[in-house]
This record gives sequence, C-alpha cells and structure tokens, in this order.
Amino acid sequence: MKLAELGEFGFIARIRQQATDGAGVVQGIGDDCAALELPAGELLLTTSDLLIEGVHFRRDWTGMDDLGYKSAAVNVSDIAAMGGTPRFLYLALGIPAELPLAELEALVGGFLAACSEYGTTLAGGDTCRSPGPLFISVTAEGSIPPGELVRRSGARPGDAIYVTGSLGDSALALYDLERGRTPDAALLARHHRPTARSTAGRRLAAAGLATAMIDISDGLLADLGHILESGAAGAVVDAAALPLSPAALARLQGAPELFERVLSGGEDYELLFTVAPADEARLAALVSAWPLPVTRIGQVTPPAEGLRVRDREGRTRALEPGGFNHFSGGGR
Amino acid sequence: MKLAELGEFGFIARIRQQATDGAGVVQGIGDDCAALELPAGELLLTTSDLLIEGVHFRRDWTGMDDLGYKSAAVNVSDIAAMGGTPRFLYLALGIPAELPLAELEALVGGFLAACSEYGTTLAGGDTCRSPGPLFISVTAEGSIPPGELVRRSGARPGDAIYVTGSLGDSALALYDLERGRTPDAALLARHHRPTARSTAGRRLAAAGLATAMIDISDGLLADLGHILESGAAGAVVDAAALPLSPAALARLQGAPELFERVLSGGEDYELLFTVAPADEARLAALVSAWPLPVTRIGQVTPPAEGLRVRDREGRTRALEPGGFNHFSGGGR
Repeated sequence: MKLAELGEFGFIARIRQQATDGAGVVQGIGDDCAALELPAGELLLTTSDLLIEGVHFRRDWTGMDDLGYKSAAVNVSDIAAMGGTPRFLYLALGIPAELPLAELEALVGGFLAACSEYGTTLAGGDTCRSPGPLFISVTAEGSIPPGELVRRSGARPGDAIYVTGSLGDSALALYDLERGRTPDAALLARHHRPTARSTAGRRLAAAGLATAMIDISDGLLADLGHILESGAAGAVVDAAALPLSPAALARLQGAPELFERVLSGGEDYELLFTVAPADEARLAALVSAWPLPVTRIGQVTPPAEGLRVRDREGRTRALEPGGFNHFSGGGR
Repeated sequence: MKLAELGEFGFIARIRQQATDGAGVVQGIGDDCAALELPAGELLLTTSDLLIEGVHFRRDWTGMDDLGYKSAAVNVSDIAAMGGTPRFLYLALGIPAELPLAELEALVGGFLAACSEYGTTLAGGDTCRSPGPLFISVTAEGSIPPGELVRRSGARPGDAIYVTGSLGDSALALYDLERGRTPDAALLARHHRPTARSTAGRRLAAAGLATAMIDISDGLLADLGHILESGAAGAVVDAAALPLSPAALARLQGAPELFERVLSGGEDYELLFTVAPADEARLAALVSAWPLPVTRIGQVTPPAEGLRVRDREGRTRALEPGGFNHFSGGGR
C-alpha cells in the first residue's frame, strides 16, 4: 500500500491512534495547534532539527524504525544539553511518493518508541508528499526551572572538561559504511540508534554542577569549539583520556589513524560539559552510582591558548575548531 | 555568493544578527535550545507546518521574500485559530546548493518581516543543504489563558457559521498561475502574502464568542468539514453569503464556474468559526468597529444532514467534505 491510497488525513488518523497523550497534554494531535501545560514557573525549552535523506542518512544504510528513533533522540539530546526535561515532540515529514506505507509506519513506530523511552508525547506535526528525498523535521519542547538552565557560554579557565559515555562509536561505524564495509554491530547500533543523555543532563543541571554544556553532534572538537567561542575560552584535551568503547578500541587496533574520527566524527550525542574545580568532588559523588560513565578529558584555558590536543606522548597540537559544515563538500 | 562559501555557521550568524530577541526570550538563537518565558498560567500552543518546493510553492511563481513571509504567516494563522497570542517562531531550511545566498537572505528577510508584524521572535531553527527541492519547516509557539482555548470540536446544531475577510482570492490567483495567465495583482498578493488573522482570533477567544474555530488552509468546505467531524455536526453554507473581494468578483465575471474555487480552493488563511445564537448580537457589537469584515455564511445543523451548500436559487446540494489531499494527484 502506498501513502497516496491512504491519504494524508488517513495517515494522520493512524498516527493519532498510536500516539498516547501524556502528562500536560490538554489538546494533542487533531486541532490547529497542540495545547500544553508546563510545570508552573519553568522556562520553555525548544529545539528544531532536520534530517534529510542523502545528507544525514541513506535509506539503504538505515532501517526506518531506527531512523524514526534517531530523529526523536537527537532532538531530546538538545533539551538534555540545556539540562531540561523533554516533554513534547512534533514530527513533520516530506514523504517521497514511492515510499511504502509499511516503511513509513516503521519510521513513526521508531519515533513513538523514543517518545515513550524519554517520557515525551508526540503532540503534533505535518505530513506532505516530497518530490525529492525523504525529509524529516522534528521539534522538541521541554522545560527547566529558570535557575538551572545550562548554556554553552559559562566555561571559565581552570574548569575541568567532562564527557558522558564513549566517543567515536558512531563515526567509526559511518567510516566503514562509507567504504562499503560492514561495521561492528555495537558501533552500528550507536550510529543508528543514539541514546540521548536525558537523565544525566537533567541531574547535572539540577545539581548546579555544569558551568557550560552541549551535546556532541558535530564532533567533540567542533562542539567544544562552540563552548569556547561562546565563553571566550581556550582548552586542552587529553587524547589519552577520551573514553572509548571496547568496540571502538577493537576498530582502532591496527588503524590508529582512525582516532581522528573519535575527535571530529560527530553524532556521539554524548554530553560535553565543564565543571568548576571546586565542584569536581561533588560531581564525582553524584556520578559514582550512575551506570553511565562520566570522564574528565581536559581543561579550560585562557582564550589565547586556543583549542589544543595533547597526544599520548604529551605533545600538544593547536587546532582550528571546525566541525561538519552541511554546505561544504564532504558528504556524511 | 553561494551558501557553501559562507557555510552553515556563517549563515546562522547572519540570521542571528538580524533577529532581535523580543519579550520572553531568555536564550535565543545560538545555543542547543531556545529558552523562553510564557505568561504565568497560560497554556503553550504549538504548531508545525511544511512548505515544500514543487508541492506548496514554485520558485518561478513566488518571490523569496513573499515565501518567507508566508511561511511564518501560515503558522501564526494556526495559533490564531485556537485564539492564542503568537510568540516564538522556528525556521528550518533544507537548501538546494545552487540557491543564491541573496535569495536565501530575501527568504529570511520576509520571514523576519512577518515575525515583526505579528509581534513574534525568531528564536531558533536549523539549516542544511538539500539534495532535492527547497524545504521549509516552521514551528510556531503561542500561549492562551486555559479558559479561552477554542478547539475545532465545539460547534453545535443551531450555531451560526462566520468567516473573516474574503474567500477565494488566493485560489483564483493560483488558478491563473497554473494556466500561465497573469493573475490580478490583488488576488496574487493574497496568494503570496496571506494575512494571519491573529488579532481577530485572539479577540474572539478572549470574548468567549467562538464555539469552534479553524483557519482556512485546505479550503472552506474541507475546513468546515474538519469542524463538523470534530463536533459531530452538519452544516448548510449559503453560497450567496460568501464574502468576495472586488478582485474576486471581477475574476468571476463571465467565469461563474470558478466559484467552485472559492468553496474549495484553500489558502485563504481566514478564520472560520461558529457562534451560539444567543451570542450573535454580542459578536456584532464586537466586530462593528473592526476594519476586518466578519460575515455570517451559514448554520450548523444536526449531523445527519451532512454538509450542504445552498446556491443563489435556494437549491441545496450535499457534499462530501474533502479538501486537498497532499498525496493524491492534483498538483497545487
């Protein structure tokens, strides 16, 4: 069955049946707007991300359920990066006419699985045919007590730099996909179905521990660069300290040049944050019981020192912070 | 200059310079999320709409400034249709590589002009290259006191049906565009640069006058159909009562068959709403000083009577409510 036979309103009716209204939803899918309640006194957080076929994903590389899940997770990740609680998601789809309805329903199914996992509600969106590629636009809303908001701009020289989870898994999987090799399953899962660090971001913010925070989408160095630009600071990153998964370590065996991908690859969706020296003991106490590793990877420096990486031999090299530019040549 | 030379971050920096943060913006463009304050106790309203080249617009028919304006206005219109105050807008763009930067800046300029006109702030978004057509995804947020929310579902038999402004202008312009004719300038302006009835929607809701409301995007009969489905009601529409602009009247001269476009054409972005009989005098008093006409065009009936149109000779015909289906053949 093709979407044309079911029609836009039929498809929306199907989504509406599957999406269950959660906390705070006064009016969900089916009117001109969603109408929603936020906790009294909290700020509204909003983010919007595009995923475009041929730029962010290829349909022959990814299952549609994973794609739906990832579309939701990368937006939830942005809410987490401010320290907020994710609440409502909106899914807008530009759909190629030839896309089978079953694939589309798998995409929505994956999206709804992520909604459920992160405690959010699919509250609206739009669907339309696309004369070109599959086009996915997601908006996420969350909330946060005003005093707990964590911006990119608060890093100060002397702050320690931390990261959640492990780095490079997604980029190493993509490296192999781009070369027609079958990536390790654990790396591939991290590429196709990233985890938004929603609980960790919220807890760090509630504890007042992060002076600056961002989620790693463009790559460790590029996103650290955003923190440094916003805060007018420099940094030194310890290459030897970067947390690597067993699968990433195995992939780097005999291919040490791929370590560059760990530094710059992107799509980790881990949280990168800075902590004042006086708070590091409190951070250690907070995260000691977490299943999620939290690793110190470097230090914020005066701005004149720029962004530097210290390698395993103790040599430092200066870097131009520069992540993936969606408009320049290199495909991803 | 092409966008590839400026880069994604350069382009966002330019937008950021032009967008001025308005009321309620704690953190605007430039972090992982926007952070926003809503008036205490009000509900959050959110809507999301796609505009896709080759489906919703053609670049050879529309100027990019108009396209930017329209992208914002059609989302503000959805906030108006719930009775809310529009507040924050998000613009996500999938941009073909060959699109000149000047055109892109015209699009953003038109978008920002609409933001300003409707008292809203561009608070975020995303940009990315598109390997296909130009994609525009807009999300709008507004707010409303909980007791004033107007849904689609409140119409009851006996309620009068009203519409703001005039109908058919946009559809008549599109009719001529599709046939290679130059439309009348007044009709064309209504097609390319529709006005969101933001003030009218807000005032009707604040006065508690509308039992149901929707904005006309799919067409008068299709959108009335949405109200009837939501409220389990029927309706009769008086064809002779439909408000037509001087330009529309002139276009229909000698081409009465085009009246069908007034009924079904869509993209009017007028408000269609229902009012209990006991409130009609109060409505008349409220709107008497408005520059915007408000016209009674029919009546809600019991559901069994379905949706009917009464023509100028007093004959009624029954209709299948059915608007534009974005997935079926007929191009728009």
